[in-house]
Amino acid sequence: MKPTLKIIKIGGNVIDDEALLPVFLKDFAALPSPKILVHGGGKIATQLAAKIGVETQMVGGRRITDAASLDIVVMAYAGLINKKIVALLQKFNDNAIGLSGADAGSLLSVKRVHPEVDFGFVGDVKAIGTANIEKLLKSGFTPVFCALTHDGKGQMLNTNADTIASEIAIGMSENYQTELIYCFEKKGVLSDINDENSVIKHIDSRKYIELKKENIIADGMLPKMENCFYALNNGVSRVMIGNPEIISGSGRQFTTLVL
Amino acid sequence: MKPTLKIIKIGGNVIDDEALLPVFLKDFAALPSPKILVHGGGKIATQLAAKIGVETQMVGGRRITDAASLDIVVMAYAGLINKKIVALLQKFNDNAIGLSGADAGSLLSVKRVHPEVDFGFVGDVKAIGTANIEKLLKSGFTPVFCALTHDGKGQMLNTNADTIASEIAIGMSENYQTELIYCFEKKGVLSDINDENSVIKHIDSRKYIELKKENIIADGMLPKMENCFYALNNGVSRVMIGNPEIISGSGRQFTTLVL
Repeated sequence: MKPTLKIIKIGGNVIDDEALLPVFLKDFAALPSPKILVHGGGKIATQLAAKIGVETQMVGGRRITDAASLDIVVMAYAGLINKKIVALLQKFNDNAIGLSGADAGSLLSVKRVHPEVDFGFVGDVKAIGTANIEKLLKSGFTPVFCALTHDGKGQMLNTNADTIASEIAIGMSENYQTELIYCFEKKGVLSDINDENSVIKHIDSRKYIELKKENIIADGMLPKMENCFYALNNGVSRVMIGNPEIISGSGRQFTTLVL
Repeated sequence: MKPTLKIIKIGGNVIDDEALLPVFLKDFAALPSPKILVHGGGKIATQLAAKIGVETQMVGGRRITDAASLDIVVMAYAGLINKKIVALLQKFNDNAIGLSGADAGSLLSVKRVHPEVDFGFVGDVKAIGTANIEKLLKSGFTPVFCALTHDGKGQMLNTNADTIASEIAIGMSENYQTELIYCFEKKGVLSDINDENSVIKHIDSRKYIELKKENIIADGMLPKMENCFYALNNGVSRVMIGNPEIISGSGRQFTTLVL
């Protein structure tokens, strides 16, 4: 039987919360290895851009990563946030190693080409350096990925953290039974958006179709769920969605997705 | 016999030179493994501080790293510079992995305490995570260190890159025959500061004492040389000092230091 590997993704609600971040990381450090953490950017990149005076360019509601913006996300994600997390995990005796997609050739991507919009330095994942990631895991390290990839030609690229987490989980599922865990601000997928406790505990493919029909899964939740089922359809054993307490076991309510 | 391990340190003269950096990294990538690269900060941190409006605090001619300055060096060193170098090395088929001292618990330091001056978030190296660094080397990775350490309590600290290079070389000399190579702007240690070609090819302990007496080694060169002999006295096989061509073999002139 393949060993279990947990891939856990955190976003701004954990990263930007000075009180919550160490609490979460202490819980994460207590989880058995092997495990992987993926983090998004939070507000720090936006605040840094404002300080430096780099304007966020939007085209059709979508963010453009120009050269100046890329420098900012590399500094904020691979620098400030990644090292803050790694230093705290080391404090909690978790042998963390921070990685961008360039490090150990772990996340190769290709610059996005769009017929109408030039998104700039944005990369779509092309290949996962599974052998290298496995070497790190087998050496007892806990890889901590920021949301950056590289194109193999010396260029860093900005890539969505949710996507990175699912692509890593898919890639690693060849040799591991992978569990993908998304921590976000809610307790799980809600049947009633206005009721925090209306968590749908289990969603399989059939239920997912129903929930879409009934318009219970809609808007921002839709791409998140599509990403989850894409992972499940490509080798990931299960996906869990919940608030940061999901990993400590104290979060009794969360959503589990299976095929 | 112990395998040879090269530890190469580059500073601002390579990092800040847009044309030289890829040329140097291509040469570095061509070197046989195992090898380690250590890089300083260059002008990028200073430029970033100016953009953000963080003033460099100096006390008695010495730079103070306050919290805002630490954030800047973490962003510039571990973020922008480290990832630029790693992405380029990956391009040149060198399986680089970027590290701060917190990553893989590789460089533990203690916050500097000085009776008169509070240097802020500056760390003096206390221990090298040699076992973890060796695991990375044996996995075929090329560690690329920036000039940051951690205190094991969740705090990143700013540490001199020359010191990091020598401390790594000393630590790794238990299991490797270590060669420490400092790339700087000159061809080596000069017998006449005004003559670029007056490189002293070999310096041993006796010659070093002579050169100091004759005042040939003085000023800024003195701490550099003290650092080199400290490394030699603590297990490092030899130290070489020269310009960036030193690693390609095209730099015919350089200084070799031995005990």
